[in-house]
Amino acid sequence: MRFGIIGTGAVGRTLADKLVTLGHEVAMGSRTKDNSAATAWADQAGPHGRSGTFAEAAAFGEILVNATAGTVSLKALRAAGAEHLAGKILIDVSNPLVFSPEGEASLDPVNTDSVAEQIQREFPDARVVKALNTLSAPVMVDPARVPGEHNLFVAGNDAEAKAEVAALLEQFGWPSGAVLDLGDVKGARGMEMLMPFWLRMMGHFGSTDFNYAFRSAG
Amino acid sequence: MRFGIIGTGAVGRTLADKLVTLGHEVAMGSRTKDNSAATAWADQAGPHGRSGTFAEAAAFGEILVNATAGTVSLKALRAAGAEHLAGKILIDVSNPLVFSPEGEASLDPVNTDSVAEQIQREFPDARVVKALNTLSAPVMVDPARVPGEHNLFVAGNDAEAKAEVAALLEQFGWPSGAVLDLGDVKGARGMEMLMPFWLRMMGHFGSTDFNYAFRSAG
Repeated sequence: MRFGIIGTGAVGRTLADKLVTLGHEVAMGSRTKDNSAATAWADQAGPHGRSGTFAEAAAFGEILVNATAGTVSLKALRAAGAEHLAGKILIDVSNPLVFSPEGEASLDPVNTDSVAEQIQREFPDARVVKALNTLSAPVMVDPARVPGEHNLFVAGNDAEAKAEVAALLEQFGWPSGAVLDLGDVKGARGMEMLMPFWLRMMGHFGSTDFNYAFRSAG
Repeated sequence: MRFGIIGTGAVGRTLADKLVTLGHEVAMGSRTKDNSAATAWADQAGPHGRSGTFAEAAAFGEILVNATAGTVSLKALRAAGAEHLAGKILIDVSNPLVFSPEGEASLDPVNTDSVAEQIQREFPDARVVKALNTLSAPVMVDPARVPGEHNLFVAGNDAEAKAEVAALLEQFGWPSGAVLDLGDVKGARGMEMLMPFWLRMMGHFGSTDFNYAFRSAG
């Protein structure tokens, strides 16, 4: 399958590598065609990897991944072009982190809105699925880094899109049943609002190789 | 030991019951001396339970529990009186939930502040420990309702106070090691911001008998 990755950071590159390893074709998009992170990634990715603008990556992909910082995601997706998003699954991996001059993290948007909702409102024909924003990039594509059973979450308005994303996550190594459905796209608020807690847990563990698991009586 | 419970809701009553069962003495405080929830609780609690005003409960307790709604906690604690909080452990169990006319939940404060921080700022001599706001009242006092190992969290500026709260939670049935320390009182932001996620998980499980567990490589 063809994937378009919007963003060239560690999350985008990690997901792009995994997708290529799985035999998918990947275009990594950035603001400018000659972005060095994107071209360097494509140079080492082999014949299944390429780079280009946000619009070129979005046009290429049958499934798109928003791997930009949540605070600039709308801007990046506008550059990608609504016509290249329409009808496609858009996996939103972003977190809208803002850091104060003292290095203190907060979120924008938060509480009564989320990046995923912003995207879904502005691009109503995209099939937005919030996913994978709740853990570190290495664990996203290699769940065995964390021992035992642990969980991922999806939220979005399109049940079929969520099921396709869950199937993709199985390719990544996540067992069937590990992906818990949090309902419609407003569920992304809670997923994004996990970030301050996650950062504290990172402090507790001194590592990013951890993840949420759920225990339930039901 | 003597406990003062500030608040008469389900969380306050559940904690008060457990504390009495464990042999502690409990005063449940409310806005007015004749609050029917508080007097009804005291009537059935036996000789170790009593009710009174916020101030009377706070004066009685050697350890205090804020079990009011997070949006009114400061007001309740002002009524309790700074002089009755000074030097005491104050376990803040609150969540600052606000519901829209459509029933949609959000938080106030959120993101750059938390109820626990508000309390610690206004009552600098209280030893605030955020705890127990991340799960349902029945599970707080009976962790075996949820199978397997699962976790609680504490945040606060006073390490000795957090250790005393962890010891109390062991009395509740939480295994040593189940309580994870999230650092100073600002860690309460992340704990309170779990609530929108928790509400979605409740929708997923169709029950409140679930809890966070953590899996870590370390």
